Amino acid sequence: MDPVLADSVRLTDDGVLILDRREFPFQRNWVTCRTVEEVARAIEDMVTQSSGPYFAALYGMVLAAREAAGMRPHAAHAALEQAGERLIRTRSTNNHLRKAVNAVLSAATGAGEELLTSTLAGAQAGDELYRSRCRSLGTHAAALLPDEGGVLTHCWADLYLIETVNAAHRAGKRLRFFCTETRPYLQGARLTAETLGEMGVDTTLISDGMGAAVLQSGEVDALVTAADRVAMDGHVINKVGTLALAVAASAFHVPFHALVQAPDQQVTTGADVPIEYRSGDEVRYTLGRRTASDKVRGLYPAFDVTPPRFVTTIVTDRGPFEPGLVAEYYREGEHNQ
Amino acid sequence: MDPVLADSVRLTDDGVLILDRREFPFQRNWVTCRTVEEVARAIEDMVTQSSGPYFAALYGMVLAAREAAGMRPHAAHAALEQAGERLIRTRSTNNHLRKAVNAVLSAATGAGEELLTSTLAGAQAGDELYRSRCRSLGTHAAALLPDEGGVLTHCWADLYLIETVNAAHRAGKRLRFFCTETRPYLQGARLTAETLGEMGVDTTLISDGMGAAVLQSGEVDALVTAADRVAMDGHVINKVGTLALAVAASAFHVPFHALVQAPDQQVTTGADVPIEYRSGDEVRYTLGRRTASDKVRGLYPAFDVTPPRFVTTIVTDRGPFEPGLVAEYYREGEHNQ
Repeated sequence: MDPVLADSVRLTDDGVLILDRREFPFQRNWVTCRTVEEVARAIEDMVTQSSGPYFAALYGMVLAAREAAGMRPHAAHAALEQAGERLIRTRSTNNHLRKAVNAVLSAATGAGEELLTSTLAGAQAGDELYRSRCRSLGTHAAALLPDEGGVLTHCWADLYLIETVNAAHRAGKRLRFFCTETRPYLQGARLTAETLGEMGVDTTLISDGMGAAVLQSGEVDALVTAADRVAMDGHVINKVGTLALAVAASAFHVPFHALVQAPDQQVTTGADVPIEYRSGDEVRYTLGRRTASDKVRGLYPAFDVTPPRFVTTIVTDRGPFEPGLVAEYYREGEHNQ
Repeated sequence: MDPVLADSVRLTDDGVLILDRREFPFQRNWVTCRTVEEVARAIEDMVTQSSGPYFAALYGMVLAAREAAGMRPHAAHAALEQAGERLIRTRSTNNHLRKAVNAVLSAATGAGEELLTSTLAGAQAGDELYRSRCRSLGTHAAALLPDEGGVLTHCWADLYLIETVNAAHRAGKRLRFFCTETRPYLQGARLTAETLGEMGVDTTLISDGMGAAVLQSGEVDALVTAADRVAMDGHVINKVGTLALAVAASAFHVPFHALVQAPDQQVTTGADVPIEYRSGDEVRYTLGRRTASDKVRGLYPAFDVTPPRFVTTIVTDRGPFEPGLVAEYYREGEHNQ
């Protein structure tokens, strides 16, 4: 059975249903977004994250097409482009959103029923392509892991992680996972740990400061995380905390494999990626309770940038690359997305 | 005005009053311990921590003397020794407890009124000696910090930190602090941040995974933490998470100064220190709320061991030492405690 989070964004006649990851797994509420604006706000408010916004943006564009179906072709396309810009603006660090919007925009033709049909087909093709690339990526990632051993992961690598575990299970590998809780949102404790548990994986939760000690202990054979983006020079941009683990993994000779479908040709180096700073107040709360008084401010860079010297492998849907050679991904040409 | 936590364990006629650090600063409850056993349980239950158990053990021994005052000298001393063993057993990693117990035991003489007077004098001398050594240590630590700049700290270095900040202020230094929240107990968010705020220090709170990114950013001129113990070969044992920050500081060329009154002659190397494992369940809760489901277990090593290659300076009450040369601390002979 697939874990719950593998299918947590759904298109219905009423709108886009998004499983609220802020309360998962303790509550399982689905948020109904009836307009593209509601989808955008759900992404901004972290109702979904990681791979979630990709699917939300795909189907948000279908809602935009429904809103624009009565317009003439030119006006409808302008409306779709505007909707796409709104969705892309919601989060600045990951380029999933741009890809999702482009998948639908490039498929959209005509107006009325034709527009509805073409955008839906574009969204569904984007959905299936994304999943199939995750399966390839997962197979390549699992091949790097030992037949039996410990893996440390951080935050929530979503379908990358699910497909890596699926591929490892198919290959008969017996992996134990350590996962960081990933403050402030606790994605590791709530999403990763829960999903690994659903998948029957032996899972140990640690707080974010414990990663180095676990890497030093010899119990971990690989550090595996997603990457929100990978620059063409091998810099890895991912959830804040990844850098700390990568540096510690390097110090204690544990390989770090970063998972991304493809490096981003628009990003030459790490400094080119805009790092999203969320409200510092989010650091002063946990699960709605204050953790610090007003005497201090909080700081919340949502992502950090790991230099390639701390990365062992970039694992893509086209296979593994040394970080310094990740630009060779495009030797086979552009991807069709 | 001294910060609240600088004087948070007090001897009264009723017993030992201990400020409950588990709820500080949101609630300011004092726990009254009427017997040495109640003091021991308060330490085990984390009512107080960091320097707190040192003072609690000093005055817990005075309670033991009150309980033993009606006995003959030999029986009274045996009872005091038993009480000391009970207090030392409460936490295994820091050697403050042993020192506090020995300070009172070595002063205790006779029985009855003489026992009461001598143990109280021993406890008060231990109290004052500890504070005076912290003042020396703080002066040496402040001398290593820039006239203006950023300092990253982890967990709660208690009087070491307070005296370092006092000395920096006396020297006219303008320091900004970053402090990690320090899960699971949030000592950084609740104790360090609050106390720095009380002392008028510009303070920014980050979650534990953000330290490496802050060290990489160039905003931090020094990493400064306490050490629960320092081995004679320069290994630093401190709150879990210290290792991660030390490794990142080394990678980004930020000096790491570890504060300890003295290295521990009983500890040749880091592996000699028993690391306390607390209940893994504590990782699955934050401030009483669940953070993960029962599908996973938690792991909670309370301390980690930082090898000397990641440490720049061990700052003691006798001045700073390179970690590899910290054994020279004892060139001047034993301390009188």
